[in-house]
Amino acid sequence: MDLKTLYAPVTRDLADVEANFKALADFWKPEFPELHDMLRHILVGGKILRPALTFMSGRCIDGQTSRILKMATANELMHIATLVHDDAIDRADTRRGRVTINKLWGLEKAILLGDFLFARAGEFAASTDNLRVTKLFSQTLGIIAVGELRQARDIYSTAQSMEGYLQRIAGKTAALLKMSTESGAILAGGTEVQIQGLAGYGYNLGLAFQIVDDILDFIGTEEELGKPVGSDLRQGTVTLPALLLIQRSPESNPVTDFLNGNDREKNITRAIDQIKRDGLIEESYLVAVKYSDKAIGLLGGLPESPCKEGLKALATHLVRRRN
Amino acid sequence: MDLKTLYAPVTRDLADVEANFKALADFWKPEFPELHDMLRHILVGGKILRPALTFMSGRCIDGQTSRILKMATANELMHIATLVHDDAIDRADTRRGRVTINKLWGLEKAILLGDFLFARAGEFAASTDNLRVTKLFSQTLGIIAVGELRQARDIYSTAQSMEGYLQRIAGKTAALLKMSTESGAILAGGTEVQIQGLAGYGYNLGLAFQIVDDILDFIGTEEELGKPVGSDLRQGTVTLPALLLIQRSPESNPVTDFLNGNDREKNITRAIDQIKRDGLIEESYLVAVKYSDKAIGLLGGLPESPCKEGLKALATHLVRRRN
Repeated sequence: MDLKTLYAPVTRDLADVEANFKALADFWKPEFPELHDMLRHILVGGKILRPALTFMSGRCIDGQTSRILKMATANELMHIATLVHDDAIDRADTRRGRVTINKLWGLEKAILLGDFLFARAGEFAASTDNLRVTKLFSQTLGIIAVGELRQARDIYSTAQSMEGYLQRIAGKTAALLKMSTESGAILAGGTEVQIQGLAGYGYNLGLAFQIVDDILDFIGTEEELGKPVGSDLRQGTVTLPALLLIQRSPESNPVTDFLNGNDREKNITRAIDQIKRDGLIEESYLVAVKYSDKAIGLLGGLPESPCKEGLKALATHLVRRRN
Repeated sequence: MDLKTLYAPVTRDLADVEANFKALADFWKPEFPELHDMLRHILVGGKILRPALTFMSGRCIDGQTSRILKMATANELMHIATLVHDDAIDRADTRRGRVTINKLWGLEKAILLGDFLFARAGEFAASTDNLRVTKLFSQTLGIIAVGELRQARDIYSTAQSMEGYLQRIAGKTAALLKMSTESGAILAGGTEVQIQGLAGYGYNLGLAFQIVDDILDFIGTEEELGKPVGSDLRQGTVTLPALLLIQRSPESNPVTDFLNGNDREKNITRAIDQIKRDGLIEESYLVAVKYSDKAIGLLGGLPESPCKEGLKALATHLVRRRN
């Protein structure tokens, strides 16, 4: 099954998000064409996972409301803003085959465009007229920033732990997926139990999703990834497969050797090989599946519906995906 | 008169903002000392003009409320966040004599710290439980980002106009001063006329304030400025004094020559000299005073009070200041 099929119950809603994005860009066309061009470049494609989660969560409880569309738009805009800043920080030239904003327009404008997108995201969140989701929005942005700061702090550090890894990916990814589901539930008027169930689903789905991302960085081909295999580790970020290798052979292993700066080219290749050979990919997948299963389990309190089935299928799909 | 005297009616309130800042930093001390250190470094000093405006605007209408403190904190945090990103973009080593975040911790962490501060500012704004100021907050952040993007777009451009200049400084500075006064008036329960009066005061004060900043960049000493004289122009940004020189001698002038890349060292010196010699500093001051007077005029609808007198005195002071 592909994402398009999984999104079937909310296909029309997702088209509304795209229409919002188009209007957001078109607004600037006459007066500030460069900003229009930047927005048109960045507000396209992607998995649009976060709006899909918001709509499906809302639909699990109640029909569609215009406020859910606003929040779904906010959630995707926040995601895109963080990507723009991430790419600026990493000086990345491409992301998933597309040239980055910083490559095309420079670092300065990338930082400012990211700030602009955060602002527009905040406006969409506040336009729901719901204080709870508006507060959730700012809290989540703070959690994401701290998660990214933790990742920056821990770069090239050999003092890695499972707790630290989970804390980083919770901030970096799970917080926003949690907001995506939780805000849909809140705006649909869910009970507190339903809201917490869907929030927990989003959070655990986010952990599973990021773990799979981290796995794919080791097992994808350069063509699939659009970047060299093992990019995270090359940049000094220790993700689950590499962490498991350190834990298995704490005394001596190519990951620690790499982080310590010893013959990096040789050790990165050794690290990738050993991670695959020692079954650490499979072991990482088991961790991802654990969180994915936990996510599905948390949907128990919701009435049966196509959207609930959709969320279950999505959780299963996201740990099986290859890109 | 100095700022401290002008702030007298709200001295205690400003101490509460500082206490909020200290608590914000201290929260991270045990678990994330580096973030604590960054926050302690950046959350100090400055003019604290924006919180002062919020408190004084609120006091013009009604007594103090805890919600005004929250918004005053949000306004200053947003200001500081924009400075952190500005310095990162400019790769500035110092600001007003203090070493910048990007110099001490690197560009990456400066971008992320800025994002974190935007998030915390948004949380403080939302914690007022007032949707109108929460929306105003996100709108203002968007206006600031667009203002900065316009400045980036217009850099080294010889096609400069008064309209374009005012548009840039309105976004860059006046929008946040407007939010500072407007939010205070809203949270104090002002009438719509009072709110619009104080919003207009803040906006025009912001234009005057930025024009004076731009003047000081030409007439201050390197010691007073903490950076070379004419820094804006050196970085390709045309501010009012330079704009007036272009307008006076559109056919041939050292500003246009500088922007076109002709013998930059010689032309920047010629530009600074000619701006001073031709009375363009005085002419720029007249524009600043015009906006400052307009700001004061907009306070007419408010009852007489020490805070109203304070706002008038502040507008007069800010166009006379030397730093």
